Amino acid sequence: MERSSLAGRGQIAQLLRPASIAIVGASEDQSKFGGRLLRMVLRHRFAGTIYPINAKRDTLFEIKAYPDFSALPAVPDMVVLAVPQPAVKPAIEAAAKMGICCGLIITSGFSDAGDAGREAENEIVGIAREHGMRLIGPNCLGLISAANRLAACSSPVLEIPELPQQPIGLVSQSGALMTTFFDRAWSHGIGFSHGISVGNQADLELADFVEFLADDPDTQVICTYIEGVKNTQRFIAAAQCARAAGKPWLAVKSGRTEAGSRAAFSHTASIAGDHAVFAAACAEQGIVLMNDIGAMMTLAASMVRYPGRKVERLAVYTPSGGGGALACDALYERGVPLATFSDATRARLDVHYTHAQTGNPIDFGARISPDAGEAARATVAALQDDAQTDGLFVPVTMAPFPWLREIVLAQPSPFADASGARGSAGKPVLFAVEAGATSEPLRGLLREHGVPYTNTMDEAVAVWAAWRRFGQQRSFETPVRPAGLPAASAAPASGIYDEERSKALFQQYGVPVNAGSVALDADEAVRCATRTGFPVVMKIVSPDIVHKSDVGGVAVGVADEPAVRDTYARLLANARRAVPEARIEGISVQAQVKGELELIIGARRDAQFGPIIVFGAGGVLVELLAQRAIASAPAGADRVLALLETLPIWKILDGYRGGRLAVDQVVDAIVRVSWLAADLGERDFELDINPLIVGKTACWAVDGRLRIA
Amino acid sequence: MERSSLAGRGQIAQLLRPASIAIVGASEDQSKFGGRLLRMVLRHRFAGTIYPINAKRDTLFEIKAYPDFSALPAVPDMVVLAVPQPAVKPAIEAAAKMGICCGLIITSGFSDAGDAGREAENEIVGIAREHGMRLIGPNCLGLISAANRLAACSSPVLEIPELPQQPIGLVSQSGALMTTFFDRAWSHGIGFSHGISVGNQADLELADFVEFLADDPDTQVICTYIEGVKNTQRFIAAAQCARAAGKPWLAVKSGRTEAGSRAAFSHTASIAGDHAVFAAACAEQGIVLMNDIGAMMTLAASMVRYPGRKVERLAVYTPSGGGGALACDALYERGVPLATFSDATRARLDVHYTHAQTGNPIDFGARISPDAGEAARATVAALQDDAQTDGLFVPVTMAPFPWLREIVLAQPSPFADASGARGSAGKPVLFAVEAGATSEPLRGLLREHGVPYTNTMDEAVAVWAAWRRFGQQRSFETPVRPAGLPAASAAPASGIYDEERSKALFQQYGVPVNAGSVALDADEAVRCATRTGFPVVMKIVSPDIVHKSDVGGVAVGVADEPAVRDTYARLLANARRAVPEARIEGISVQAQVKGELELIIGARRDAQFGPIIVFGAGGVLVELLAQRAIASAPAGADRVLALLETLPIWKILDGYRGGRLAVDQVVDAIVRVSWLAADLGERDFELDINPLIVGKTACWAVDGRLRIA
Repeated sequence: MERSSLAGRGQIAQLLRPASIAIVGASEDQSKFGGRLLRMVLRHRFAGTIYPINAKRDTLFEIKAYPDFSALPAVPDMVVLAVPQPAVKPAIEAAAKMGICCGLIITSGFSDAGDAGREAENEIVGIAREHGMRLIGPNCLGLISAANRLAACSSPVLEIPELPQQPIGLVSQSGALMTTFFDRAWSHGIGFSHGISVGNQADLELADFVEFLADDPDTQVICTYIEGVKNTQRFIAAAQCARAAGKPWLAVKSGRTEAGSRAAFSHTASIAGDHAVFAAACAEQGIVLMNDIGAMMTLAASMVRYPGRKVERLAVYTPSGGGGALACDALYERGVPLATFSDATRARLDVHYTHAQTGNPIDFGARISPDAGEAARATVAALQDDAQTDGLFVPVTMAPFPWLREIVLAQPSPFADASGARGSAGKPVLFAVEAGATSEPLRGLLREHGVPYTNTMDEAVAVWAAWRRFGQQRSFETPVRPAGLPAASAAPASGIYDEERSKALFQQYGVPVNAGSVALDADEAVRCATRTGFPVVMKIVSPDIVHKSDVGGVAVGVADEPAVRDTYARLLANARRAVPEARIEGISVQAQVKGELELIIGARRDAQFGPIIVFGAGGVLVELLAQRAIASAPAGADRVLALLETLPIWKILDGYRGGRLAVDQVVDAIVRVSWLAADLGERDFELDINPLIVGKTACWAVDGRLRIA
Repeated sequence: MERSSLAGRGQIAQLLRPASIAIVGASEDQSKFGGRLLRMVLRHRFAGTIYPINAKRDTLFEIKAYPDFSALPAVPDMVVLAVPQPAVKPAIEAAAKMGICCGLIITSGFSDAGDAGREAENEIVGIAREHGMRLIGPNCLGLISAANRLAACSSPVLEIPELPQQPIGLVSQSGALMTTFFDRAWSHGIGFSHGISVGNQADLELADFVEFLADDPDTQVICTYIEGVKNTQRFIAAAQCARAAGKPWLAVKSGRTEAGSRAAFSHTASIAGDHAVFAAACAEQGIVLMNDIGAMMTLAASMVRYPGRKVERLAVYTPSGGGGALACDALYERGVPLATFSDATRARLDVHYTHAQTGNPIDFGARISPDAGEAARATVAALQDDAQTDGLFVPVTMAPFPWLREIVLAQPSPFADASGARGSAGKPVLFAVEAGATSEPLRGLLREHGVPYTNTMDEAVAVWAAWRRFGQQRSFETPVRPAGLPAASAAPASGIYDEERSKALFQQYGVPVNAGSVALDADEAVRCATRTGFPVVMKIVSPDIVHKSDVGGVAVGVADEPAVRDTYARLLANARRAVPEARIEGISVQAQVKGELELIIGARRDAQFGPIIVFGAGGVLVELLAQRAIASAPAGADRVLALLETLPIWKILDGYRGGRLAVDQVVDAIVRVSWLAADLGERDFELDINPLIVGKTACWAVDGRLRIA
């Protein structure tokens, strides 16, 4: 018997297009996974050869069945297992030995069910690897590949005459959600090329399938539902594949609000939680993160119909005023701007509406020209031609169906016209059809013409907002190591660094710190202060006192020599009273710098994504202004500046009142911290500079801490 | 002929329950409003007498028609007009003279169409008032009253066999949205008592209909779609009616993000825009403001099924893990907490799930007990009994229908059991059914059992979040005028008050200000500073210089006598250079107070809601922390404190790091400003104190401005 013609490891594209499949556990019993699965494979007319394996039957649904692998006349390309857990291992063993290249394991009870299951899972992965066989699952819902006419899945959603096919691929870490939203999408006329439930990802993982879709000629847009990233490098590599193929990758991730539970040594740990880091990584990798699977699928379908389009400003076109008002509110709240029409556009619209009605939104119900069809065609044409308009949003309230039909028919169609020439769909159009049963004919018409729609305003606006973010993606230069940094290999010692040591290290990396030095007695403190210039800040230095303010260990505005002496004595006394056993290493005497704004710059090694930096409002604002920027380290100046511009405090940095602050210096400081983070990248570490005081011409790190494992 | 038996003005309840209606413009022609409307009245079997008025026909749809009013055998209770605009006035005239109590005018082209239309509208209102007749509309879509079996509306959504009736009333400023969402609600099994499209509100207005619903025995929950409030006092009176009747009032308002266009003399004008004031008024009046009409109707239906319930903590119960994860994310983002089950509850659940699975959410698909029905019943019972759980959220992903059926059947039913006793529906339950066509049987089952559901996670979570806000409403004591205020009648003079005069007035109202006085020369400045204590702040005083900092007219940290003299000269020189023509009234020398936080307190007269106060983060934070609290003036201390607690800066006031600040003093200052606002209430005014510096034991208004028209 010859080995399957499919190539071995790495060629997942081949694995997912089997010419023949064996189904272990196949039966006619519709109460069993294997029974339902076989019926679905047959129902959706898999074009290849099917080998049901069932020891008790000669035929199943009139197809020849085989008692075991040894009875098969050829080596199938794929084996599907829907059998009880204990039967999986022997079946995989037999299949692998036979030379089957791919196993799809529906069965659960492996790593999803605790340690014993995990061991069983490792065993079957070991067997497969030994024989160059790849595995999908276990504990998955299977494959639904319209492009291959292969429905290797037992879900009741497959009880439809035909799998709708569009060039949208889905990879899902939840089988139930995959089938739920397939069903929903099909009801909206949206089809898919492939849907892959990844299950426990014992062998093949989500990133493998994303790479497959990036390479798949039947797929143009990639959708994913993610619960957790298995292997970050593979994840990032898959993103690069998708980008290189020019295919948008859309993603919904659950667990996005799980509170980080790490003990907060630094602020960075608590303000750059796991999901925030994941979101930053998606932004860097060009993955469009969304909150809702339905909206993700609608966006995918829209991107397929309107390929290469970017969306910034929208025209709102509605059969009635109320819906338009709510649409504008919802767009505004999601930051999607309305278009301002050109004079030429308004002149064209003025033929059909009063001039007051040709602003944005346009109320079709209030038109003054008698012919609804002509008005709809003229309006859509004017908006399609308007240079300020990137897309057309049509929130539909109850209106006479003939009007709505005209609005639908007026949309440009990408399909072949009478002459056979394939047209363009023009600028993106999306309908929101909020009514119930009465609007079914409209929905049918939209499906017939392939025009995307949602059933709610919320979903439509989520689609537009995500599309806009997709259009705003930009690429950044590869970060270049700034001059004057220590060698990347000059590894700083492990340990917890107090303020003095932290600032010394930051300064080595070229981050400006306020002048200062540690005095061991009051005389030396006076000399330090005189050198620095009055007034000064004085702080206790002790490895045993992390929160210096809490023990009365900090004094600001120390104005002259007697004050320095008094303060020296007072800080020591305070510290000794509060922490009698503390080792006191002196008093730090520092220049009291004055700025306009306090920032925080933090960095840590993320267990998944490696060294990252985080920055935002500092000082007392840390707790109030939750929005921060996160980037992987090292980060270049262009990226840091772009992120700063997204923060609420940008207004202050940019000088909305008074002059612009020292933005270049802030960017440089952040870039340099990112290189320190990169140099520490393989080790577990966290640091923060809080505050970085920003003035009009300079900035200074005035406090900081660092822990290196 | 006798006058209609209906009472006249004010008894809207009677007007909306006519025993007989005349329809002017009635026909059989289904291309006309009057034709469709007559057919709908007949279709939904209006129980009263119908008098079609049509000069050309003896009968319409086999009902006797009349050529004009004079031919009618009796005076109808209501006349419905669906005729061209010019025909409205004579018809109203004839109807009013005949003694008809209520006119429902569908026709548009009145105040909706400019000045001429407005004049025509005023005329018909004048005619109606003269004869004690009340008007609904014009430019409305009519009435859909299931409770009266009266469908006086031409909308195609009425092409259903029967109007579903539930005790939910809807008053809408958009007819198209009313019918759109009625249709949607009906598809979800939700019915209404009355739906009223208010049109131009020429006579009867939204508040009148809300009062009607508050009094209506067929209505338990009131829904409204609002575009603008016509008469604030009537609006507030209606809210009080609804509250007194114990009926929740839910509202969606459009135009909520329209940027305020007023020139910003004070910050208050720009930070307390129209919608923010409306939202604050709704909060004070117990109106639950929402963003989405569909979610509003689902909440209304839920409140009807679960009367009197409040919702705080939810249990999430789902047939699969993925949906549960997304539900928890969405709830967290909207601030709805998950319940922590008691040990007793977990013990009951442990019978059916592994202990790790009996936290929250509960994954029905991962249950270990064999009988799905028993597991569902036991789970629902345990959650209904759990004291920590206020409601049960069931996000449904694809799962075997028999499981889902068991979960639905396990819900307590309010309907009569075999013994005839009416049961309780228990704690609120809401399903989110996200799949498409495959889930129709589940939706049908939910409708059959009256269990509320949504088709999206977003809408379900919006329902829960609004229900929670409803439950958190609290009432506050009537504000009492604090001691020591000027007499309310001691009207301050009109004009623009500079800092000195503003602070003097604030001080009269008992708001603490930092010490200071105005010096006319350098010697006096030195005396002032010595009296106040160094360091001092010095500011130019000129009615012609509003933004003192911008002209170099402010100095802080002036430390001693020589510095006061230098500064005096420098500020004068700066001011003269920047604004040569400015009238200089001296230099203000003020104590430099040091605090921990800066607040802003503002007040203005809102054109609709009268005097209001607004407060929140001040100083540089004004632009960064957008969240403010708004209250009508005067406001009592309990309300002010409750509002402060909702602000992000509450953490600082409450002393999350270091001690609690002078909260009592801040509350008192805000209360006192609210009384000043109330005293100015009839006049157009705006003021702000920015910043109010807050320390640990005191607060001080250190800058302020005031304009009184």
